[in-house]
Amino acid sequence: MNKRKIINDPVYGFISIPSDFLFDLIEHPWFQRLRRIRQLGLTELVYPGALHTRFHHAIGAMYLMDQALQTLKGKGHAISEEEATAAQAAILLHDLGHGPFSHVLENTLLPHIPHEQISLLLMKELNVQFHGRLDLAIEMFEGVYKRKFFHQLISSQLDMDRLDYLNRDCYYTGVIEGSIGTDRIIKMLDIVDDQLVVEEKGLLSIEHFLNARRTMYWQVYLHKTSLCAETMLSQIVGRARELAGQGTDVFATPVLSAFLRSRFQEPKALFEPGFSALFTNLDDTDLWASIKVWMLHDDFVLSTLCRMLLSRSLFKLQFVTPEQSGETFEKARISLSANGVPAEYLHYFAVEGKISNAAYLTESEQIKVKMKNGGVIDISEASELPAIRALSKIVSKHFVSWAKNVSLRPKS
Amino acid sequence: MNKRKIINDPVYGFISIPSDFLFDLIEHPWFQRLRRIRQLGLTELVYPGALHTRFHHAIGAMYLMDQALQTLKGKGHAISEEEATAAQAAILLHDLGHGPFSHVLENTLLPHIPHEQISLLLMKELNVQFHGRLDLAIEMFEGVYKRKFFHQLISSQLDMDRLDYLNRDCYYTGVIEGSIGTDRIIKMLDIVDDQLVVEEKGLLSIEHFLNARRTMYWQVYLHKTSLCAETMLSQIVGRARELAGQGTDVFATPVLSAFLRSRFQEPKALFEPGFSALFTNLDDTDLWASIKVWMLHDDFVLSTLCRMLLSRSLFKLQFVTPEQSGETFEKARISLSANGVPAEYLHYFAVEGKISNAAYLTESEQIKVKMKNGGVIDISEASELPAIRALSKIVSKHFVSWAKNVSLRPKS
Amino acid sequence: MNKRKIINDPVYGFISIPSDFLFDLIEHPWFQRLRRIRQLGLTELVYPGALHTRFHHAIGAMYLMDQALQTLKGKGHAISEEEATAAQAAILLHDLGHGPFSHVLENTLLPHIPHEQISLLLMKELNVQFHGRLDLAIEMFEGVYKRKFFHQLISSQLDMDRLDYLNRDCYYTGVIEGSIGTDRIIKMLDIVDDQLVVEEKGLLSIEHFLNARRTMYWQVYLHKTSLCAETMLSQIVGRARELAGQGTDVFATPVLSAFLRSRFQEPKALFEPGFSALFTNLDDTDLWASIKVWMLHDDFVLSTLCRMLLSRSLFKLQFVTPEQSGETFEKARISLSANGVPAEYLHYFAVEGKISNAAYLTESEQIKVKMKNGGVIDISEASELPAIRALSKIVSKHFVSWAKNVSLRPKS
Amino acid sequence: MNKRKIINDPVYGFISIPSDFLFDLIEHPWFQRLRRIRQLGLTELVYPGALHTRFHHAIGAMYLMDQALQTLKGKGHAISEEEATAAQAAILLHDLGHGPFSHVLENTLLPHIPHEQISLLLMKELNVQFHGRLDLAIEMFEGVYKRKFFHQLISSQLDMDRLDYLNRDCYYTGVIEGSIGTDRIIKMLDIVDDQLVVEEKGLLSIEHFLNARRTMYWQVYLHKTSLCAETMLSQIVGRARELAGQGTDVFATPVLSAFLRSRFQEPKALFEPGFSALFTNLDDTDLWASIKVWMLHDDFVLSTLCRMLLSRSLFKLQFVTPEQSGETFEKARISLSANGVPAEYLHYFAVEGKISNAAYLTESEQIKVKMKNGGVIDISEASELPAIRALSKIVSKHFVSWAKNVSLRPKS
Repeated sequence: MNKRKIINDPVYGFISIPSDFLFDLIEHPWFQRLRRIRQLGLTELVYPGALHTRFHHAIGAMYLMDQALQTLKGKGHAISEEEATAAQAAILLHDLGHGPFSHVLENTLLPHIPHEQISLLLMKELNVQFHGRLDLAIEMFEGVYKRKFFHQLISSQLDMDRLDYLNRDCYYTGVIEGSIGTDRIIKMLDIVDDQLVVEEKGLLSIEHFLNARRTMYWQVYLHKTSLCAETMLSQIVGRARELAGQGTDVFATPVLSAFLRSRFQEPKALFEPGFSALFTNLDDTDLWASIKVWMLHDDFVLSTLCRMLLSRSLFKLQFVTPEQSGETFEKARISLSANGVPAEYLHYFAVEGKISNAAYLTESEQIKVKMKNGGVIDISEASELPAIRALSKIVSKHFVSWAKNVSLRPKS
Repeated sequence: MNKRKIINDPVYGFISIPSDFLFDLIEHPWFQRLRRIRQLGLTELVYPGALHTRFHHAIGAMYLMDQALQTLKGKGHAISEEEATAAQAAILLHDLGHGPFSHVLENTLLPHIPHEQISLLLMKELNVQFHGRLDLAIEMFEGVYKRKFFHQLISSQLDMDRLDYLNRDCYYTGVIEGSIGTDRIIKMLDIVDDQLVVEEKGLLSIEHFLNARRTMYWQVYLHKTSLCAETMLSQIVGRARELAGQGTDVFATPVLSAFLRSRFQEPKALFEPGFSALFTNLDDTDLWASIKVWMLHDDFVLSTLCRMLLSRSLFKLQFVTPEQSGETFEKARISLSANGVPAEYLHYFAVEGKISNAAYLTESEQIKVKMKNGGVIDISEASELPAIRALSKIVSKHFVSWAKNVSLRPKS
Repeated sequence: MNKRKIINDPVYGFISIPSDFLFDLIEHPWFQRLRRIRQLGLTELVYPGALHTRFHHAIGAMYLMDQALQTLKGKGHAISEEEATAAQAAILLHDLGHGPFSHVLENTLLPHIPHEQISLLLMKELNVQFHGRLDLAIEMFEGVYKRKFFHQLISSQLDMDRLDYLNRDCYYTGVIEGSIGTDRIIKMLDIVDDQLVVEEKGLLSIEHFLNARRTMYWQVYLHKTSLCAETMLSQIVGRARELAGQGTDVFATPVLSAFLRSRFQEPKALFEPGFSALFTNLDDTDLWASIKVWMLHDDFVLSTLCRMLLSRSLFKLQFVTPEQSGETFEKARISLSANGVPAEYLHYFAVEGKISNAAYLTESEQIKVKMKNGGVIDISEASELPAIRALSKIVSKHFVSWAKNVSLRPKS
Repeated sequence: MNKRKIINDPVYGFISIPSDFLFDLIEHPWFQRLRRIRQLGLTELVYPGALHTRFHHAIGAMYLMDQALQTLKGKGHAISEEEATAAQAAILLHDLGHGPFSHVLENTLLPHIPHEQISLLLMKELNVQFHGRLDLAIEMFEGVYKRKFFHQLISSQLDMDRLDYLNRDCYYTGVIEGSIGTDRIIKMLDIVDDQLVVEEKGLLSIEHFLNARRTMYWQVYLHKTSLCAETMLSQIVGRARELAGQGTDVFATPVLSAFLRSRFQEPKALFEPGFSALFTNLDDTDLWASIKVWMLHDDFVLSTLCRMLLSRSLFKLQFVTPEQSGETFEKARISLSANGVPAEYLHYFAVEGKISNAAYLTESEQIKVKMKNGGVIDISEASELPAIRALSKIVSKHFVSWAKNVSLRPKS
C-alpha cells in the first residue's frame, strides 16, 4: 500500500491517520468535499486568515478523539480497537451534512433540514458503501450505544468537536483570547459509570474553556461585520431563488441551480432520490462563482447586493433593545428611500434580526466534575465562583442591519 | 470616517493600515479579488492548512515594508511620507497580476504574459482611477526611481515579498523548518549609496533565510504531490480549451469561458480593450466550480481528469535523470494503454516535465553586506562557509508524472 | 558609543532600548541585580521553566509602556519626549525594591517594609546619582504628576506591569490559559480627562485579561505546592534568624548574615545608613547558597527543613474552612509527634495560614471604559455579563500545611 | 501513592513521567541539583531569557526518547519495557556530571576530568543505591549494549540530547533561527541492523537541523559577549584559587572552598572518597554568592574582575588571524598598562584564546540515511547539495579578549 498516513497540521503538529479504514473515509469524495466548505463562512471578511475548512477541522477532531481515548485507556478504562475506530469515524464524519456558509444556507436553501440530520443520512449511505463498518460509529453518533461517554466525546458541551474548533478558529483568525489548553483538558478527562467527567483539578481549565468560548462568540462567531455579510448573503440567495422561481434567467452552476429552483424545502426532502448526490456536490465555490456572475444581472436588487458583497461594501448593523428595533428599522427604511431605493425593494436592504448565545447551557446535559472525594457533581456547582452561572445566561441581542450611506438608485 | 483600520493577522498580530489612501487601495475590488486567489494554489491537497490568499500576503508585505522603513529612518535615512506611502502601495499591489493557480494558469490560459506585466498594467489603470497618486509607486515598482533601495525592498533577493511569503507559508502549512526571523532581518537592514544592504552581524540570519527558502522549495513549493496536482490541472484546462475550440459545449462561468475560448494568447492581449475587466474577474472559484461540472462531461479525458482531481486520486510522479526520462515516460504510456487508455488520449495522462530551483542566484543582483570596516561586499563573499555557494547551485529535476494504478477505460 | 541597544525577548521578539539614559539605568548595578531575583521565587519547583527574573520583566514592562505611549500618541494625545522617558524609567525601576523570594522574605526579613517603599527609596537615591533626571519619573511613580494616566500605566488594575507579568509568566511556566492579547489591549487604550480608559470595543479583551489573571492566581501564583515550599522557606529563615539571635553559629553569606542578625525590622530601617547598599546586594543566590550549608547544620530543625526543601520533599497542604482549621492543625501536630518530632519543634513543621485573591477589585480605582456614546463608565458596569462582578469577589482560603508522611526523629 | 507524574513544559506541552522508577530518579537530590545548574551558564548576560536548567533539559530529552521509542515500535521494532526504561534513565542522567558554568569550571576547577566521566561515576553510585536497576542504562550509556541504536539515541550526532537542547535553547533565548522540527525528525527515525537511521524523506529536516545547530553555535553558544564573560569568570576563579593557595583569606561557600583549595586536579580525583558527595553539592549559586563577596576583597585583581562581571562591564573581544593574535594581544597589554594596570596583573585582564566548531563531523560516526531503494548511506553522500560538506568544515577562530576602555588603577 502507498497510503499517505501523516498530515501536517499547524495546530497540533503531525497527525497520523490511525487505520486504513479511517484513511479510506478521508479519501472518500464526500469527505474530500469538505475541503471546499469553509469552517467560518464569511468570517474571512473580518479575519482574513480564517479560511480553514471543515475538512481540516474534522481531521483535527479525530486527532483529539485519539488523544482522549489514549488518556482514558491510560486511566484503566477498557476501550476496544473497534470502539476506538468507531468513535474516530463518527467524529470524522460529524460535519458531513454541512453545506456552504452553513447557517446562512440552512436558512435559505434548506430551511427545515438541520445539518445533523444530513450528516446522519450521509453516514448511513456511507455505511452501505462500506458494508456496515460504520454500524457502531452511527450508534455512537446517535447516542444509542450503551457506553454513553463515546457520544459525549462526539457531541456534548465538552466534545472533541468544540475543543478542536475553538483551537483552530483561534489559530486561523489570530484571536488569541480564544486559545485553550486542549492538552490539559484532555489529560483531565475520566469516566465514571460510563459518563464522561473531568477531574476536579481540571476545573480551572474548563472554566477557561467556557470563557474562551464566550469570547469567541462575541469576537468572532457573532462579529457585527460577519453578521452584516451573512445577512447580505441571505438576501442574495433569497432574491436569486425568487427570480428563478419567477422564471427569470439566473445563471448558476448546475448544482446550485437545482437548489435555487425550489426543491428540498421540506424535511422529507432528505428522502428524495438524488438528494445526497446533489447535496454532496454543493460547496462554497458554487456560491462565489455564481455571485460573481450575478453582479452583472439585470435585476437591480441582485446585482447591487452582489456588487456590494464582492467589493466589501457591507451593510451596517446596530444592536437595539427589542423596543427600539421597530423604530430603528423604520429609520433605516426611510434613509434607504431617501437614497433612492424604491419601496418594493426596501426589505432587501434592511433587515431586523436577533442572535443569541450562551457559553454554557445549564439546562442541557451538563459537564460533570469528579471531585477528589469521589463524588460527581455538575460543573456549575463545582465552580467556586459564580462565573459559570454567569456564562450560562443566554444573551440575546436584537439588531437592525441595513445598507447605510450607500446610494442605491436603480438605473432608470 | 468609519474606515476599519486594523487587521488581525495571526502571523504578525495586528496590522494597522497606515493611511486612508492605502485603505482605499485595499478596498478596491481588484484588490479584494485577491481574497479569492490562494497563495499556494493546489498545495492545500498536501498541506490542508495552506489556504491563505494573496490578499493576506500582500497586506503582510505592506506591514513588513512599514517595519523596514521605520528601521531605516531610525538609522538616520530620510524617507518622506510620500516615499513611504508609495513603497507600501507598490508592495501592496505587486501581486495584482496573479491569476488563479498562478503558474498553472500562466502556462495554459495566458502562456505568453508574465504576471508582473499584468500587475504593472493594473497598477497603471488604478493610477488613472486614483488621479496619478500611484506615480511614485509605479516608478519604484519598475525600478526607475532614483533611490534604488525602494525597488530592492519591493523586488529583489531580499524583498518584503519573500520575507512575508516564507513566514506566512510556514504558518499555514505548519512546516516549521521554513520559519525565519523576519524581525531580526529587518532590524539589520541599512542603506549605503541608496542601495539596500544588511549589516554584517545579520549575516547568520540571512544564511538562515536562504536555507529556509531552499527547504520550503523542496518541502512545499515543489512537493511531488503538488506537482502531480498541478500537472493534472494543466491537462484539465488544456483539454477544456481544446474542446471549447472544437466547438464542443463546455460549461464554464462566463469569465472562464472567455479565457477558454482562445483570446489572450499573445503578449499584445494585454492591450486589448476589456482585458483588465475580464482578468480581474477571474479567480479560483471559477475553476473549481467549472471542474465540478466537467466531472460529468461526456468527454472521457475531461471528466476522468476532473473526477480524479476532485477525489484526490492524483497522478504519481517519479524523478528521473534526463537520460531515463524517455524510457520512464514510455513505460508509463504502456501501462496506461494496458489500463485501457486509448492511444490518442495517452498524452493527457502521462507528462514529462522539469523543475528547477536555486535558493540564491549569484548571477542576479546580489544581497549586499555592510562589513564592520565599512566596506560593502556580496553575501557570497561575506559568508565564511561555502554554504551560500551551495545554495546558489541551480538544481534541476526531470520528472515523469502519470496516472498510475488507475483503471481508465472509457465507457464504450 | 558602543552601547548594546537591542535585547532579544522570546515574549515580544526584539526590544530596542529607546535612549541612552534608559540604557544607563539598565546597566546600573542595582538594576543588574534584578538578574538574580526570580520573578516567581519558588514556583520553579512546580513549573520548572519559571526561572525568569525581575530584570527581564522590568524590561518587558518598559517595552509595553513604549507601545502604549505610541498608541496614545497615535490617537492624538500630546506626550513629550521627557514624559515618555520618565514613564519608561518609572516602570523600569518599579520593582527595584523586591528582595529574593519576595513575599516570603518580606514576611521574615523585612516584616514591616513594603517593597514599594524600598523601590521609591532606591529611585530617589538613583535620582541623586543621575543628577535629578528621575524627578519626573518619581512624580509619576508616586502618583503626584498632574497627568494621572501616567501613574495608571505604571500602577493600576490595568498597568503595564500586570500585562507584562501575565504574559511572561505564561510563557515561562507553559500555562497557556493565562496568555493574554497584550497587543490588542494596548491598541484599545485611550485617555479621557487625563485618565486612562479602554475603548468599548476592547471590553472582551479586558474581561479575558481579568479571567486570565484569576486563572494564573489559582494555577500558578497560589499553587498548593508553591505555598508549601514558601511556607518551608519562611520557617527556614525564621529558624536561622532565631539561632543567629541566640548566638549559635549560622553560616551565611555576609549580606544575608547582616539581615539575619536582626537589623531592619522596623519601618524606620529604611533610613538607616547602609540600608540601600546592603539591600541591593542581597539576592536569590545568598539564600540558596546558605540553605545548602544549613542542610548540614547541627540544629535538627534547620537541617531537616533545608534537606527537605533541597530534595523537594515538600510539606503537604490542605485547604480547610475556618472552622476546620484548628482541628486539622491539631491532627497534623499529633501525627508529627507520632513521627518523632519533639513538642517544642512542632510549630516549625506545621503551619496554619490563609491566602486570598480577587482578580479585580471594585473598591480600588476601577478600569474605566469609554463607551461609543462618549461616556466613561466603570468596567463592572460596562460588562454585560455578571462575570466581572464574579471576578471581584475576594476568595479567601484557609489552609494547614505540614510535613506529612515524613519521619522526623532528631538524632539522639 | 501520591506521586506527581505530569510536568508542564512550555516547549512540549505536558510531559508524563512514564514510571515510578524514573520518578524516583528525578526526585533524587543529585538530579534535583540540576535545578541549580543553568544549561547555558553566562549566556543570560546576552540573552536574558536563557535561564533554563539542565534539570529541565534532561526531562525534555527523556520525553523525546519516549517519542522516539514509540515511533520505532510503531515501525515494527521490538523494544522491551526494560529497554525503554533503561534508555530513558540513561538520557535523564546523562548530564549529571555537569558542574556550574560547565566549560568554564571544567577548565579551572576540574581541568583533567571530563564531565562524561563524572556522569558515569554518579550513575554507577546511583546504581548501587538503586540495587542494580541502572545496569542496562549504564550499558547503553557506555555504548556496550548490543543494540547500538540505544546508545545512538543517547549520544551521537542525532541524539535526543541535541534535539532537546536546540529546541529548548531557542525557546528560552528567543533566537528563532535555531528552532527545529523535532516532531518530524523523530517520525523519520528507523532502525537498520540495530543502527539508527533516518528515512530518505527526512533528509531536508536533517539538513535543517544541522544548519540550525550551526546558527546556534555562532549566534548563541559562541557569542562574543558570552565568551568575554566566560573568560572573566575563568580569570576570577583562577585568581581566587591562586589566592587561596597562597594562604590569603578568601571567602567561599564550604563546598566551593573545598574545590578552590586544590583538590581534584588529577583524573584519579574521581576515585577519592568524598568526591561525589562534594561534587553533587556544588552549583551555580556557590559561585555567584562568592563572587558577590569577592567584589569587596582586598585583592585588586579579584575585586576588580568581580565588580566588572557583576555590573556587566565586560571585557571586549576581537577575532584575529593566528598571525595577528600576538600583536593584538600586545596592544591590549599596552593599553591596559596605560590605564594603570601593573605589569604583574596584566595577564588577568588580557587573554588570547581560540574556539572552534563544526556543525557536523564527517570523521565521527555519521548520520545514516535509509534510501528508498533500501540502501543505507551516510548523510554527507545522501544530501544532494554540498551543504552538508560545508557544515562539516571545522571553523576555528582565534581571539584576544581584554578589559577595554576601563580604568583599572589599584588604590595605592
